[in-house]
Amino acid sequence: MFPKPMRMLMDAFKKLPGIGPKAAYRMAVSILGMPYEEAREIARAIMLVKKSIALCSVCCNFTDVDPCLICSDGNRDQGFICVVEEPEDVEALERGGSHPGVYHVLGGRISALEGVGPEKLRVRELFERVKKGGVREVLIATDPNVEGEATAMHIARELKTLGVRATRPARGIPAGADIKYIDGDTLSQALRARQEL
Amino acid sequence: MFPKPMRMLMDAFKKLPGIGPKAAYRMAVSILGMPYEEAREIARAIMLVKKSIALCSVCCNFTDVDPCLICSDGNRDQGFICVVEEPEDVEALERGGSHPGVYHVLGGRISALEGVGPEKLRVRELFERVKKGGVREVLIATDPNVEGEATAMHIARELKTLGVRATRPARGIPAGADIKYIDGDTLSQALRARQEL
Repeated sequence: MFPKPMRMLMDAFKKLPGIGPKAAYRMAVSILGMPYEEAREIARAIMLVKKSIALCSVCCNFTDVDPCLICSDGNRDQGFICVVEEPEDVEALERGGSHPGVYHVLGGRISALEGVGPEKLRVRELFERVKKGGVREVLIATDPNVEGEATAMHIARELKTLGVRATRPARGIPAGADIKYIDGDTLSQALRARQEL
Repeated sequence: MFPKPMRMLMDAFKKLPGIGPKAAYRMAVSILGMPYEEAREIARAIMLVKKSIALCSVCCNFTDVDPCLICSDGNRDQGFICVVEEPEDVEALERGGSHPGVYHVLGGRISALEGVGPEKLRVRELFERVKKGGVREVLIATDPNVEGEATAMHIARELKTLGVRATRPARGIPAGADIKYIDGDTLSQALRARQEL
């Protein structure tokens, strides 16, 4: 049997998502093998995140200052909110650099299968933010799949009753794609929304 | 951009084997979402392993006491050493409970591709252990693949010059297997080593 501290560490790692017994073992062995300083860095980074990171009180993204750097940026259009599922989506959109406004992070999407209703997402926070006024448009950039669409529809319906414009990113053929490998749904949406040359 | 503590934690996780950017992100998010106590358990387990686990000075397995519990067990046959690649192999053999002797953990296998020669394994430690006397048989239970076999051959050759019996586990059809799915190598070894009914 593994010595107790090894078993404890493997059990701890197994609590992380996607980490099974094999991965937990390999990770624990790697901790054993690495320099003391490096292992301490990991332990410290865990505690630092717990102590310093929270959700932005405005947009619900991760932040170590509140409001977050994007929400408190005077150069960004506070009347134009882009709604995304996860903090990672904000990262991707910021890499593109084409959204001049601010964000709202839902923390997931509506999923009947996984038992996630709107009340488990930060949907209420979005509507309260909109009700405060000053918001002209909400661009709903949830993932283009059944659950993402359902989430977008739910939010759009409510926004219309509030008299705020709800939009979504254009559907179409992605840059650099190979048309012969593109699915029928995407192609039919791209043809319907065809643009003049 | 993610706040700095999040990026630091993701970078730390990425140093673990098999953890890429996506897994590191999911793990960091999960740390954020878990109760403070649970995250502290993980950080503590990392430090505890670094502080308390070392290699057994006899068999080179992980241990928090030296020599390890198996090496210091008077009921085990100290003259019968089973050589394995990894500590995990000791776990598996102990679950089977059929090895009455002790172990020697090599810490890997000879692999030309990965640049691992015998000098990077704890092969020398095995020979020194044998040279001290009292060892009748060394059962070499490396994995049954090209690299495991090469490792076994290398060790067996040296053991013969020391006049010690070198054996390996029987090759054959594993319990519960479906013969139609068994590879040709295994079948031909099983037929050659067929047993009387």
